[in-house]
Amino acid sequence: MRFTKMQGCGNDYVYINGFTEKVPQEKKPEFVRFASDRHFGIGGDGVIFINPSDEADFEMEMYNADGTRAEMCGNGIRCVAKYVHDKGLTDQTQFSIVSGGKVKYMDLTVENGITKAIRVDMGEPILTAAEVPVVSKNEQSVDEEIVVDNEKYRMTCVSMGNPHAVVFVDSTADFPLEQIGPHFENHERFPRRTNTEFVEVVSPEYVKMRVWERGTGETLACGTGCCATAAACVLNGKTGRKVTVEVLGGALTIEWDEKTNHIFMTGPAEFVFDGELEYEG
Amino acid sequence: MRFTKMQGCGNDYVYINGFTEKVPQEKKPEFVRFASDRHFGIGGDGVIFINPSDEADFEMEMYNADGTRAEMCGNGIRCVAKYVHDKGLTDQTQFSIVSGGKVKYMDLTVENGITKAIRVDMGEPILTAAEVPVVSKNEQSVDEEIVVDNEKYRMTCVSMGNPHAVVFVDSTADFPLEQIGPHFENHERFPRRTNTEFVEVVSPEYVKMRVWERGTGETLACGTGCCATAAACVLNGKTGRKVTVEVLGGALTIEWDEKTNHIFMTGPAEFVFDGELEYEG
Repeated sequence: MRFTKMQGCGNDYVYINGFTEKVPQEKKPEFVRFASDRHFGIGGDGVIFINPSDEADFEMEMYNADGTRAEMCGNGIRCVAKYVHDKGLTDQTQFSIVSGGKVKYMDLTVENGITKAIRVDMGEPILTAAEVPVVSKNEQSVDEEIVVDNEKYRMTCVSMGNPHAVVFVDSTADFPLEQIGPHFENHERFPRRTNTEFVEVVSPEYVKMRVWERGTGETLACGTGCCATAAACVLNGKTGRKVTVEVLGGALTIEWDEKTNHIFMTGPAEFVFDGELEYEG
Repeated sequence: MRFTKMQGCGNDYVYINGFTEKVPQEKKPEFVRFASDRHFGIGGDGVIFINPSDEADFEMEMYNADGTRAEMCGNGIRCVAKYVHDKGLTDQTQFSIVSGGKVKYMDLTVENGITKAIRVDMGEPILTAAEVPVVSKNEQSVDEEIVVDNEKYRMTCVSMGNPHAVVFVDSTADFPLEQIGPHFENHERFPRRTNTEFVEVVSPEYVKMRVWERGTGETLACGTGCCATAAACVLNGKTGRKVTVEVLGGALTIEWDEKTNHIFMTGPAEFVFDGELEYEG
C-alpha cells in the first residue's frame, strides 16, 4: 500500500489515495490504529483517505489515531487540497471537499505547479451561547467572567462546528496551560466540554495563541481554534478583521469577511515523504 | 533519499543505507533532528546509518533524536542485522557489526529468506561496583539496600557498557515508575546517573520488566536493561541462566552463558515501511 505523510502547522496525518488504494471499510479502524502508532506503525495524528464524492469534487474521510471518525480538521483539509492538486488528481485551483457531511471550498495559490498556500472557506462562526454550547445569561458569551479553579478569567465563546472558549492573556509563553486547560475543558458551563484558546495580542494584525484541545490536550495547532480566536479578537476590538495567528506549529492568516460573515483560513501544507507498506486488507 | 523505518520491541529508528545514500557528515546532526521529528519529519527514536567498515562486516552509525551520537542499542543492532540480510547486503547469517567502536557478533534465524530472530552476543556483564559505577562498600552491589525518596529498596547493579540498577517488585503494572524513576536516576550513589529496571518474577524462566532510561524516562524496551535484568535474576537466585524478559514493547530472551560469561540477547526486528524523502545534502 502506498501512502503519503503530510503536515500543516505540525498537525500530521497519513494520507491515502482512496482512488487507487483499498482498505475494506470494516477494517479501517484497526488499520488506522496501526498506521497512526508512532513506534510500531507510520506515526501520525490520524489517517485521512482521499476519496471520490458525489457531493463535492473530493471526499476527505478522516480518522483520529484511536480509529474513531473525525468530522473535520482545518490543517488536514489544506493538506488534502495540496495533495489532489500537486499529485495531479485535479488541475483546478478552486474546488470543493466534503468532510463529515459538510462541503468546504478551497482556493489555492500555486507557483510552478506547486501549491504554496490554501485558502479555505470555514463558514460562519456560531456566536449564540446555547448553540456553542456554553451556559450563559446572555445571548452571546462575549468578554464574560468565568471562575476556573478559583481564578477569574474573561472569555469569549465561539463555535466553528466545535466549541471554543477564547481567553486573552498577557503572555502565552508563561501561561500554565497544562494546569489550567483541563479545568476549562471540564467546567460545568460547557455541556459538551470545550477547546480553549489562550491568546496574546501582539498588534492589531498579529496574535500568538496556545490551544488546549478537548480530549487531546495541548497541540501544535488547531485550525478551527485559530478561526475562533480571530472572531473573538474582532468581537473584543483587539484586532482588525484580518489577523495572523501564530501557534506552536506555525502561523495561519484568518479573515472574517464582513459581507458574507464567513471566516477564511489561509495557510501552508507540506509533503514530508511518500512511503510503501506491506498491507493485506 | 530512500530510507526504511524499522522497530524492535517498539524501539523505532529511521534506517539509511550508507552504501548508496549520502548525507555529508557535518550535516548529519541537523538531518537527524529533522528526520526524527514525529510531527514535521519521519519520526523515530533516532537515525541509524548502515555503513561499510574495516573493523567488522558492517558499521552501525547511530544518532539519538536530538542529533547527538549514541554508542549502541540492542534493539537497533537487531534491526541492522535483519536489514543487511533481508535486503541482500549479505547472504551470511553470522556476521559482525561495529557500533561506537565495539564489535558485536550476530547469529540469525532465517526462514524462507526472512530473518525471524537475531541473537546478539552482548559481551560480559560488569559487576564490579566501581566500574558500574555505583557507590558501595562491597566489591559488587548485589541485593544492597538503597534509600530513595525516603523509601527502602534492594538493588543489584550491573553495567552492560551503561549503568543499570535492578530492583525486584511485586507488580510492575502497579509500580509508580514516573514518580520513583527520576529519584533513582539522580541518586548520589550513581556518579554517572543510572538506568533502573523494576522487575516482577513470574517464574524461573519468565519475568516482567519496566525500565526508566537515563535522560529519557520510561521507554517501551531497553536491550541492555533486559541483559542487566537477567544477570540480576541469576545473581539473586530468582531465575535460571536463560530467561524471557517481557517489556512494554515485546519480549526478549536473554541467556547468560556459564562457559564464556557472555550474555546473549535474542529477539525480533521488524520492517515497518520503506519511504522516500526529498533531501538536498
